[in-house]
Amino acid sequence: MNQIQSINYPIYFNSVTTHLNNFINEGKYSRFFILTDEHTSTHCLPYIREKLNNRDDFDLIEINAGEESKTIDFCIGIWKMLIDFDADRSSLLINLGGGVVTDLGGFAASTFKRGIDFIHIPTTLLSQVDASVGGKTGIDIDNLKNIIGTFTQPKAVFIEHAFLSTLPARQVKSGMAEMLKHGLIADASYWNVLKISDLENPTDQLIYQSVVIKNKVVTEDPSERGIRKILNFGHTIGHALESYSLDNDSNPLTHGEAIAAGMICEAYLSHLKAGLPAGDMQEIVDTLLGVYGKYPIHESCYTALNAIMKKDKKNQGGKINCSLLTKIGECRIDNICTDDELCDSLKYYASLQYAQV
Amino acid sequence: MNQIQSINYPIYFNSVTTHLNNFINEGKYSRFFILTDEHTSTHCLPYIREKLNNRDDFDLIEINAGEESKTIDFCIGIWKMLIDFDADRSSLLINLGGGVVTDLGGFAASTFKRGIDFIHIPTTLLSQVDASVGGKTGIDIDNLKNIIGTFTQPKAVFIEHAFLSTLPARQVKSGMAEMLKHGLIADASYWNVLKISDLENPTDQLIYQSVVIKNKVVTEDPSERGIRKILNFGHTIGHALESYSLDNDSNPLTHGEAIAAGMICEAYLSHLKAGLPAGDMQEIVDTLLGVYGKYPIHESCYTALNAIMKKDKKNQGGKINCSLLTKIGECRIDNICTDDELCDSLKYYASLQYAQV
Repeated sequence: MNQIQSINYPIYFNSVTTHLNNFINEGKYSRFFILTDEHTSTHCLPYIREKLNNRDDFDLIEINAGEESKTIDFCIGIWKMLIDFDADRSSLLINLGGGVVTDLGGFAASTFKRGIDFIHIPTTLLSQVDASVGGKTGIDIDNLKNIIGTFTQPKAVFIEHAFLSTLPARQVKSGMAEMLKHGLIADASYWNVLKISDLENPTDQLIYQSVVIKNKVVTEDPSERGIRKILNFGHTIGHALESYSLDNDSNPLTHGEAIAAGMICEAYLSHLKAGLPAGDMQEIVDTLLGVYGKYPIHESCYTALNAIMKKDKKNQGGKINCSLLTKIGECRIDNICTDDELCDSLKYYASLQYAQV
Repeated sequence: MNQIQSINYPIYFNSVTTHLNNFINEGKYSRFFILTDEHTSTHCLPYIREKLNNRDDFDLIEINAGEESKTIDFCIGIWKMLIDFDADRSSLLINLGGGVVTDLGGFAASTFKRGIDFIHIPTTLLSQVDASVGGKTGIDIDNLKNIIGTFTQPKAVFIEHAFLSTLPARQVKSGMAEMLKHGLIADASYWNVLKISDLENPTDQLIYQSVVIKNKVVTEDPSERGIRKILNFGHTIGHALESYSLDNDSNPLTHGEAIAAGMICEAYLSHLKAGLPAGDMQEIVDTLLGVYGKYPIHESCYTALNAIMKKDKKNQGGKINCSLLTKIGECRIDNICTDDELCDSLKYYASLQYAQV
């Protein structure tokens, strides 16, 4: 349980001391750079420095924390720092942070001098079980999430349980939403274990199982032509809610909170269109509302949400395309949903009686 | 002589009518977009429209002509237009233009929604024999040429001799520099034919041969780990001259003029370091100066040129790395050149007695 093989790179668990040192020292790289944000500089870099025996022969690139940094402007900033540091094609970029750092750093590296190697050391639960595995890099434009990016695999991923203790509970729960999704789309027994677990303190074993599920899917379909789309369950509506909230709320939804709300809406659509049994739907709704509470979606914002969904990357020929559950543990891709159906799912969510987030 | 197979796509010669229509109509694409610049909109788009039976079910994206457009700002502009036009992952981008359009359009497409398909219809000799073949996409930052980009293969390339009649003689000669380079690095008999050809009116056959040479090299080594670097002969110094001239001259050097001067300097280095016979060096110098004249390089700009070379993508561990000729028709990669040697080659060029460009 300390290593998984992905497409063409290893995912290491809790073994940064041995394997990261081996990786850097094997002689393949002329230099290395570490990308952090202001939080991971403080809370995670000292841990990595210590594991690297306090060597200091690298340059540090730090960005602001938060989704607001996942822009082309910050990417240009990284490119220019790599230029200033005389990074060459044999340089290595180590992305130490959450999904913003790994997505942005991966994109910057995959395009710098037409591609330098990079590795991820994800420091949030969300990036450990989701962003760091599968080779998606990306930046946002005008709050359209990951609208620009590449499919480029890292050379290695290092998942360290130790970092989870640095996170606020809300961030851990955010990552947990993707883990719950992994159960819903691919493994009912995993879902059954998860839903009664301590969702603020996931064990090594649960994280490992989530990465195994995600890795299996992306390895089968690296560039999202087919089966990989099951990972988008909850994300058509969830991404729209996340973008909307980022633009309109002073304390925006986390990714996991948005995806949890999206999964509830899409469980409704799954029941409507893909045969998800009513009992399964109710179980999903109860579990997710129980963990994440409820986000107030007013009728006045349906049009704006629909407009965001129209820009979703999975759409084809102008039609909104969702991945829906046929039952807990099974997901079907390429379900075209009409504007009315999507609107109904939002109304369904709005009608649920629960405490607000 | 109307088709070559490249890495995983065809290069068609003078057969846009049949093959472009087939390509668009085979049902793979939801929509298509044509990227042009103000020149190709006027001089080349009507030709393509006619070949496409005047269909108008596409959107046009036009950029300003010239290297100044090969920036991240223009790339963002293309991304935003694709977003506004609701381009989806099944969209096709057709790049109709010279190297700026094909490099920039290729980069924009390869990163939009993590990559949509694109094809090139190169309209300059330079882009026909060089930029459009081999899957390099790129943009400049701070005049560092192609410092950002990807290796992404187009789905097809269409080379149409008809476009050459739309070009000023200086542009044709610019492309010819790359053809001459192909002879120098890989085929002495081709060089011997070329150097006595009408360099302002290259025949179909000569263009075809040049594409065959370039294609053979890039197919062997798509991501430039080894042999592909021979294509960089003349480009370490040539790119520096091109960047410098773009920043400092009211009428900057064309790419071909800069590369011709770069090839003379690097022929000198080849003689010094790689065994290029003196007679071969003299033949290269005489031929290139005869065609391109001489660019005045003052001693005062050696430092600036050296600083640009220090940023060259081929460098490793801070050392400037050139591809040099061992004789006409053969090239050796990975020759580390010192600052003094590079400076000497510029002095050698400056000492040559010829009319100025």
